[in-house]
Amino acid sequence: MATPSWSSSLRTEGPIGVFDSGLGGLSVLRALTERMPREDFVYLGDTARTPYGTRGKQTILNYTHACARALREHRIKLLVVACNTVSAIALEPLAAELFIPAVGAILPGLHAATKVSVGQRIGVLASSRTALSGSYEQAFPSIALRGAQIFVQPSPLLIALADEGWLEGEVPRLAVREYLTPLLKHGIDTLLLGCSQFPLLSGLIERELAALGGGLIRVVSSAEPLADECLKVVTARQLATVRTDPGKVRILLTDLPEDLRVAERYLGAHIGVTSITAVDL
Amino acid sequence: MATPSWSSSLRTEGPIGVFDSGLGGLSVLRALTERMPREDFVYLGDTARTPYGTRGKQTILNYTHACARALREHRIKLLVVACNTVSAIALEPLAAELFIPAVGAILPGLHAATKVSVGQRIGVLASSRTALSGSYEQAFPSIALRGAQIFVQPSPLLIALADEGWLEGEVPRLAVREYLTPLLKHGIDTLLLGCSQFPLLSGLIERELAALGGGLIRVVSSAEPLADECLKVVTARQLATVRTDPGKVRILLTDLPEDLRVAERYLGAHIGVTSITAVDL
Repeated sequence: MATPSWSSSLRTEGPIGVFDSGLGGLSVLRALTERMPREDFVYLGDTARTPYGTRGKQTILNYTHACARALREHRIKLLVVACNTVSAIALEPLAAELFIPAVGAILPGLHAATKVSVGQRIGVLASSRTALSGSYEQAFPSIALRGAQIFVQPSPLLIALADEGWLEGEVPRLAVREYLTPLLKHGIDTLLLGCSQFPLLSGLIERELAALGGGLIRVVSSAEPLADECLKVVTARQLATVRTDPGKVRILLTDLPEDLRVAERYLGAHIGVTSITAVDL
Repeated sequence: MATPSWSSSLRTEGPIGVFDSGLGGLSVLRALTERMPREDFVYLGDTARTPYGTRGKQTILNYTHACARALREHRIKLLVVACNTVSAIALEPLAAELFIPAVGAILPGLHAATKVSVGQRIGVLASSRTALSGSYEQAFPSIALRGAQIFVQPSPLLIALADEGWLEGEVPRLAVREYLTPLLKHGIDTLLLGCSQFPLLSGLIERELAALGGGLIRVVSSAEPLADECLKVVTARQLATVRTDPGKVRILLTDLPEDLRVAERYLGAHIGVTSITAVDL
């Protein structure tokens, strides 16, 4: 009796799975489809239990486990963890459970930040749980060779503001200012957006940096470096599809929002979504 | 063979169950223990999946169902739904499932507001889901006899601010102002705090009302009227304990916060808590 094997076509023709605690990872999905337009994607956003970033570690591991099981049913060939909180605390157990390559957001973002940083003083805006995890600091040994210093600022209200689509005006501006101020005191020259929701606020963050005298500080999102890293993995592991037609993009959400405007903000106008479906985990 | 019956001692000696989507209902628990210090209480806060107020109806019903099952195991004699969102959309299915009296936050709060309102123009700050549910307006027929008018303002960011313990300063002040402004345009004379987290912000809300020229507007919390209503139900249905020693207060949380300061803010200094335990639902 033959042992079931992972055939070559399964390796290349399965979709790429993208997992996020909510909708923020759609900005990663967009960056991925730009780089790999012929690949199929299955995005799973745990909108019924978002935000993860304020919860305990075990709770996040439990949720992540359930979401990984759901993605496995789609025979994904690569798992992209768009959520920085999940990347920070659950990347290894996820990869072990799925037996496929898994790429998280922490290292690609941090590498991109050190590349553009002149003075190697890097600030990170992150969820409370990501900050508590110490993941950015622990990723440090490889980074520290360049003599970089890293300062992680928990910024939980920015997540709520992004989720509400409250992106302009005094309330988000002052919240951003509150979180940037301690980072500016540390003399950062580069700011990494360490949460998948924060690209929505990047315009406001850049303006506020300028207003606070930090106009030269470079703002780096994790989304594009993460997508770059995924393209590298797909190429290096020979996982690229051989099909030439445009790939399918399916979005699964554990709680379907009545108003998809926030999702559209992350996705932008250029990405064609094949389906948006509710899943019960 | 005898049919199992709900014996008299079970009726009076079971604990009172208090259910909330998070920690906000602890303000209701405090009001309850003040009125019924000899009763045992079991509080269940679904901190692993809070906030409910931004989620879809079916998701909230699923979560509520799971929490109700957990509370039933404690043989509660009365269910107090401290969460306005759950009260708005799931009170009836909950009561039907548990076969015990269930008291929700919508009607007691609204009655209390109409009692103190001079001009019967009542504003409500609520979660997005509570506002969408139309529950306050639907509770209206009994209220409308007094000719009251009601205006419900979704205030999602206030929930995040309360959960973060960010209760003072420009960010919460301006967020409160943003949500109060449309209510003031409606000429309200009474403001009902229609979410269990909002009592934490009541000082700020009152100051901001005064600053906006609404210093005569009465602010009504749902917590005390809900506790008053529960005392009435316990008395009317002869559910009061016959014990004379102080009751036990147990708190169950689906995700144990490392920092219990927010919980303490709701509970105040005067309530003795017997235990705080994590439960996995």
